[in-house]
Amino acid sequence: MGDSASTTPELYAMNGGDGRFSYAKNSFLQGHNVTASKGKIGEAIAEKLDLEILLSTSKTIRIVDVGCSVGPNTFLAIQSIIESIERKYQAQELNINQKPEFQVFFNDLTSNDFNTLFSSLPPDRQYFAAGVPGSFHGRLFPEGSIHFFYSCIALHILSKVPEELLDKSSPSWNRGRIHYINAPDEVVNAYATQYAKGIEIFLDARAKEMVPGGMAVMIFPANPTGIPYSQTFTGAMFELLESSILDLAREGKISEAQVDSFNLPMYVPSLEEMMELVQKNGCFDIEKMELTSPGVLHESMTNTSSMGKAIVMHE
Amino acid sequence: MGDSASTTPELYAMNGGDGRFSYAKNSFLQGHNVTASKGKIGEAIAEKLDLEILLSTSKTIRIVDVGCSVGPNTFLAIQSIIESIERKYQAQELNINQKPEFQVFFNDLTSNDFNTLFSSLPPDRQYFAAGVPGSFHGRLFPEGSIHFFYSCIALHILSKVPEELLDKSSPSWNRGRIHYINAPDEVVNAYATQYAKGIEIFLDARAKEMVPGGMAVMIFPANPTGIPYSQTFTGAMFELLESSILDLAREGKISEAQVDSFNLPMYVPSLEEMMELVQKNGCFDIEKMELTSPGVLHESMTNTSSMGKAIVMHE
Repeated sequence: MGDSASTTPELYAMNGGDGRFSYAKNSFLQGHNVTASKGKIGEAIAEKLDLEILLSTSKTIRIVDVGCSVGPNTFLAIQSIIESIERKYQAQELNINQKPEFQVFFNDLTSNDFNTLFSSLPPDRQYFAAGVPGSFHGRLFPEGSIHFFYSCIALHILSKVPEELLDKSSPSWNRGRIHYINAPDEVVNAYATQYAKGIEIFLDARAKEMVPGGMAVMIFPANPTGIPYSQTFTGAMFELLESSILDLAREGKISEAQVDSFNLPMYVPSLEEMMELVQKNGCFDIEKMELTSPGVLHESMTNTSSMGKAIVMHE
Repeated sequence: MGDSASTTPELYAMNGGDGRFSYAKNSFLQGHNVTASKGKIGEAIAEKLDLEILLSTSKTIRIVDVGCSVGPNTFLAIQSIIESIERKYQAQELNINQKPEFQVFFNDLTSNDFNTLFSSLPPDRQYFAAGVPGSFHGRLFPEGSIHFFYSCIALHILSKVPEELLDKSSPSWNRGRIHYINAPDEVVNAYATQYAKGIEIFLDARAKEMVPGGMAVMIFPANPTGIPYSQTFTGAMFELLESSILDLAREGKISEAQVDSFNLPMYVPSLEEMMELVQKNGCFDIEKMELTSPGVLHESMTNTSSMGKAIVMHE
């Protein structure tokens, strides 16, 4: 309910507004994930969601986008989920007096730009909209009230940077780095442990909030097994960022102590790692888990220079 | 769901942020209404709200502040309502496994400053919070989902200025005035008709959204019977504003056409008028309706100058 100590610091929210550097204008890569996952979510709803069970206790279907940020991606995803549920509703030929109504909760950190989110809500939307401020590393909704959780590229954000990374006396002190890439095992383990704690809290909270028979679709960055992290897309991105920051330190524009004190609060698990965390937690059954290829970049990205710019701007 | 043609224009939202001219810092008069009404709301809940009925179908009690704006008033009011419901819950000695959870929806126009509202939510709140953007002159929530509606000094806002006030060929053309104060009957009637339409839409929407056995507490500006509007507090305030605007026109700082084109989108009914509107609508029973005295001004208002300033700043 109220903010707890484990709440994700508010500085981790995406840039607000709709200007040049806003998330709304720089999230086509995330948008690609929305488009790429539409079909799969539709299939999951068609195959696994039993609306007869859900509608036996409620005339309303409540959907949450966990970590929605701002911009068109969340509206596109929600629209697609609602259309899939409506198709399933028709396919199930339920003997119910009236069509269900939809209530959609857009969740993100309190510092998310909800004003811009609200002003860009589709005017012709067929759902009741609400914004829910707060960290997904904690409870956000009453018990047994949500039918469908959706999250796209949000779970990699840690609730906080592991404390030992800043402890000079710890073998996990992350000196001269901003992430766990190319770091000793102790640093990687500190990140992995923090991530595991966060996922445990996340799953416990969502399990309480979900109605029996509900569904959660989580799209999160994960690494293919056997490929070194530095060779993955996100790994390469963070390595580039780290190398730029180290250049700034070498040029004396920032101090070494500043480099040491900054650590990206993000962790990308392997698919197996996430599977183990969900199974260990025990609240949810995994119906399907798969790695999608990074896919094709946005069609406007016709040369390396514009692609590089888009990648740099994308968050 | 989506914005309809009847939606209140977004320019009617209160000033955002928490600066000198913000509503959050200039709403102590509205705050006085919150304080003055606390006891009465508590009594109404103790006497009229049957939690056994409400909790027979839901483990969650959903509360809405309709037209909440920004600032401390809405949080104080909600806190007081929750405490009253909890007292009633204990008094009823219900045989239910667990205490109900509370979900609070803060509603106001899309242009309301929800970012400031969310960042000022009490950190120790005992409820799940959500923001709902949209005009209360229309549906905001799924059918049968809300247990308690609350609104404080919001219902006097019209969904739009009556069109005939701007029609030079109409007897309701409101030339040389900004309101219906001191205006011919045709202008007053145009305002009253627009207000009646809005209240009808409001009541129909709330009736659909409310669960059986729910309660609505509406605090709204109303005039004492038999006292001319110009002698009421709000009447005097609008007359002062009109006189200032007419001075600006006489000094040539604004044009007469600008005066003619501006009309305050507010109407204050008499208590009898509101009673008739609610009865004609037929969706709600009136358990109690009374006029409270304007009450004592804020204790920091020790002289006429600071009181005048406070009144001018209060919206």
